[in-house]
Amino acid sequence: MNDFDELIRELVKFRDARNWEQFHNSRDLALAISIEAAELNELFLWKSVEESEAVDKSKIKEELADILAFSLLLAQKHDFDIKEILLEKIHKNNQKYPVEKSKGTAKKYNEL
Amino acid sequence: MNDFDELIRELVKFRDARNWEQFHNSRDLALAISIEAAELNELFLWKSVEESEAVDKSKIKEELADILAFSLLLAQKHDFDIKEILLEKIHKNNQKYPVEKSKGTAKKYNEL
Amino acid sequence: MNDFDELIRELVKFRDARNWEQFHNSRDLALAISIEAAELNELFLWKSVEESEAVDKSKIKEELADILAFSLLLAQKHDFDIKEILLEKIHKNNQKYPVEKSKGTAKKYNEL
Amino acid sequence: MNDFDELIRELVKFRDARNWEQFHNSRDLALAISIEAAELNELFLWKSVEESEAVDKSKIKEELADILAFSLLLAQKHDFDIKEILLEKIHKNNQKYPVEKSKGTAKKYNEL
Repeated sequence: MNDFDELIRELVKFRDARNWEQFHNSRDLALAISIEAAELNELFLWKSVEESEAVDKSKIKEELADILAFSLLLAQKHDFDIKEILLEKIHKNNQKYPVEKSKGTAKKYNEL
Repeated sequence: MNDFDELIRELVKFRDARNWEQFHNSRDLALAISIEAAELNELFLWKSVEESEAVDKSKIKEELADILAFSLLLAQKHDFDIKEILLEKIHKNNQKYPVEKSKGTAKKYNEL
Repeated sequence: MNDFDELIRELVKFRDARNWEQFHNSRDLALAISIEAAELNELFLWKSVEESEAVDKSKIKEELADILAFSLLLAQKHDFDIKEILLEKIHKNNQKYPVEKSKGTAKKYNEL
Repeated sequence: MNDFDELIRELVKFRDARNWEQFHNSRDLALAISIEAAELNELFLWKSVEESEAVDKSKIKEELADILAFSLLLAQKHDFDIKEILLEKIHKNNQKYPVEKSKGTAKKYNEL
């Protein structure tokens, strides 16, 4: 069993003990991810880049864990293999953002 | 090396080949997560729960991979151990959402 | 003075009494809008379309007011005329979504 | 007829010509607002505060118009009076953020 499977097993155990699978359709899981992402962003609101790096790490940890938890539950729902989808994405982005064109610039692929 | 470390290593390799670490401050990584989360949600916009389950899985995969990629990069930036922060979160939520009170209800902990 | 100008005047009065213009750059105002939008969405999380219509209207009002407040402040910052930008947008969407093609379908313009 | 009523009338005309009211439940309108808010934020991603102020104004205009359009449609759905809900909010925030405590600080009301 790999690390993702182990975490997903814990998340599913937590979910099923509460009979929450009924609420976890794809649409609501996606919404939950974006609400948690907004809570993460709120930690940095009205703060400069420098001030943002001084934000309490334990708060960043908590919001990031929420985002990851709902993301893993959505992956589990669709039987996605986390490692596989991430490696595929990196592979695609390698082609979308060729090193020679994208080095040192934050431009989107369609502006390169 | 565990699975997360392996993925993070690949993400960092991709990032560093492009000299992109300069853009990856916490504030922008958090913003990137929430923009990718919105793209995931857009797949379900104006769709019922049932229609949402029929959305092209390859699109869900791509958006979820983007969310996870930026989440892992933010974790890497702060030296968070993914497994640890998720297990801690599950532990906290076990106390915040006791089974007997939260079973079968989607209420928030402060409304239980 | 039209209605938007009047509201913007009140918002600016509130802002300036607190010396908050220094925080109100475009980037942070945009982030504030999206955080308030997430709070609006949270009212509907884990709820069906029907349950969502039963959500306490006073809460919807509050979150919507927050979204509008930051939106008007961003418009003010750039000297946008609210009425003009909205009428322009409707005009554009009239061409992007021709009635005969878009009637009764929620498809995006690039899928019509 | 005030300015908001006039704009809402145009938005409703556009919507009804396409028979789109069926899609415009509160939950989806709220989601649409947050997706448009993410598109606004994407204009500023990986950019400093200064670079953000140099972003093409016509793009900011378009995204802001989308946010306002869905916000006005949600207000119309619930028969909210825009002017009233905003003035009420400013009134509440006047009490939540007393000038003497909040002047020059971006702290949240619960941290003042």
